[in-house]
Amino acid sequence: MNESLTYRDAGVDLDAAERAKRSLAPLLDAVGDENTLSGLGSFGGLYAVPGGMAEPVLVASADGVGTKLKVAFASRRHDTVGQDLVNHCVNDILVQGARPLFFLDYLATGDLDEGVVSAVVGGVARACSENACALLGGETAQMPDFYAAGEYDLAGFVVGVVERGHILDGSAVRAGDRLVALPSSGLHTNGFTLARTIVFERLGLGVGDPFPGEPATVEEVLLRVHRSYLATVWPLLEEGAVRAMAHITGGGIGGNLPRVLPEGLGARVDCTSWAPANVFRQLRDAGGVALREMYRVFNMGVGMILVVAPEREAEVLAALGKGGWPLGEVVEGSGVQLSGVD
Amino acid sequence: MNESLTYRDAGVDLDAAERAKRSLAPLLDAVGDENTLSGLGSFGGLYAVPGGMAEPVLVASADGVGTKLKVAFASRRHDTVGQDLVNHCVNDILVQGARPLFFLDYLATGDLDEGVVSAVVGGVARACSENACALLGGETAQMPDFYAAGEYDLAGFVVGVVERGHILDGSAVRAGDRLVALPSSGLHTNGFTLARTIVFERLGLGVGDPFPGEPATVEEVLLRVHRSYLATVWPLLEEGAVRAMAHITGGGIGGNLPRVLPEGLGARVDCTSWAPANVFRQLRDAGGVALREMYRVFNMGVGMILVVAPEREAEVLAALGKGGWPLGEVVEGSGVQLSGVD
Repeated sequence: MNESLTYRDAGVDLDAAERAKRSLAPLLDAVGDENTLSGLGSFGGLYAVPGGMAEPVLVASADGVGTKLKVAFASRRHDTVGQDLVNHCVNDILVQGARPLFFLDYLATGDLDEGVVSAVVGGVARACSENACALLGGETAQMPDFYAAGEYDLAGFVVGVVERGHILDGSAVRAGDRLVALPSSGLHTNGFTLARTIVFERLGLGVGDPFPGEPATVEEVLLRVHRSYLATVWPLLEEGAVRAMAHITGGGIGGNLPRVLPEGLGARVDCTSWAPANVFRQLRDAGGVALREMYRVFNMGVGMILVVAPEREAEVLAALGKGGWPLGEVVEGSGVQLSGVD
Repeated sequence: MNESLTYRDAGVDLDAAERAKRSLAPLLDAVGDENTLSGLGSFGGLYAVPGGMAEPVLVASADGVGTKLKVAFASRRHDTVGQDLVNHCVNDILVQGARPLFFLDYLATGDLDEGVVSAVVGGVARACSENACALLGGETAQMPDFYAAGEYDLAGFVVGVVERGHILDGSAVRAGDRLVALPSSGLHTNGFTLARTIVFERLGLGVGDPFPGEPATVEEVLLRVHRSYLATVWPLLEEGAVRAMAHITGGGIGGNLPRVLPEGLGARVDCTSWAPANVFRQLRDAGGVALREMYRVFNMGVGMILVVAPEREAEVLAALGKGGWPLGEVVEGSGVQLSGVD
């Protein structure tokens, strides 16, 4: 009863935390830019507000990876979920016209496995680099009786900047504007609780099994990285060709597109304008999921929607090439009509 | 086998998520300022960079509440952990000289209990208001097979600003500078895995039992809110009276004070200059924890340390009144010597 207790006895290893922190230092150093002023060990990360802007407005977003993490645990592949997280956050500020400045992550673990931490944060760092965004810091928490061994939660936070006059807030949208779809790479990071139920329980598949209908394994299909639309869309934003953008996440097209349309306007989306990828068809068939529910839970193949003036649609479609298609239009009214589904 | 599945069957209730989001709207609206440009439903939160600064530098920090949350779960008191989170983050950027601009939270739940979500985010909002910081947005995630029913994780991100010339980076610190301690309110948010082991397992106490040695219950003692030092310290920062500051979190005085001292300097801390509060004495006695380990895991009553020039020590101590005391000094060398402990 009176044996001496240490923090380590209770399940927290401060030395392992210190080692993990040091091992992450090169990752952080590699993903900075000339505005990154802080080094490792600072309490907060420092980032100079970029000069040369008239009225800089910061745009910030927080997000998590959700239960896509469960697929990563089962697959023991921890190097892609960080990309999902960063790309999701970057898309969320891109739709308001902002480019990312810096990112911070929150990684909460049960046991602090240095290899896993390094793989997860390595994925975060790689995606930051790909999005020209500094990795300014983060928190790695050891919570032994919170998370099962080998499990963790991962959340992140991005800050970007936009010139005040260039904020996309939907006010420029007019009835008759065209919708242009950009394809998703797969499920992105939404609907995984339903997808996992169907794949692992209904179909009884394991992560290494072939996924029905395509030459890839279950883990390859389910872990496909949430795509960042920054590189594709930024040139169009700089040309002023986009009036609004919607990132299609939880809630699907019908839940997200109205968020960027002004009062009094709705949208007609032609759901016959594309064929949803195999993963969506398989989930629907195996789960017997109603088509409306599929469109409410999943992106169904549309990761981002651009709203453009009719006279600029051809230019935008030409710039996108095979990476975009005409999806529908903005109409008087409210809500989203999914033609071919409703 | 072919029954129709919905997202709700799988454990995610999008309607509850929408209701929770709407119920949070008044909280967010109430905690904005003239620079807050976004409304509810935006993908990212918008915040104008404050004008009137020559070279504004952003300072950002991410943190969680850690397993202090387990005490909140057991006590069914969810309205204070948000304050712990915000105050912790605010202190982490304050030590670099920054005042907070805005905050975002990440709340991950098993089942989405609207009352709990509202209490947690209500605490976040109250603390934002107390720290004159906008609550710019956040993410509430439903992860049914991740978190036990009634449990959640909570993380947050703060962004503040400091004039480039006023950044506290330790470079102004000299040998002979004085250390001034500011008292903590209790455990703050560190060392809870060890504290819970001692209180709930060793002592076998419940959250409603009297805490040994003081007229308060276990939950009252363990849930005491992590103090924000912003209001106390900001006037001293504005007068240029502070050369460096260390927020005493995980790792204790010895782990945190060196983070703000330049190469070649260490510190001598007089651990006989104060008597650690009852909670620390009880944990040590009941856990048989070595004194060095106590100082490595807990703040021991010192929540913040200011480094001030010798000629300004009297002025700083006078301004703090009973809210601060002389703790020691900066010395040539490295590391922290805890006199009375080492």
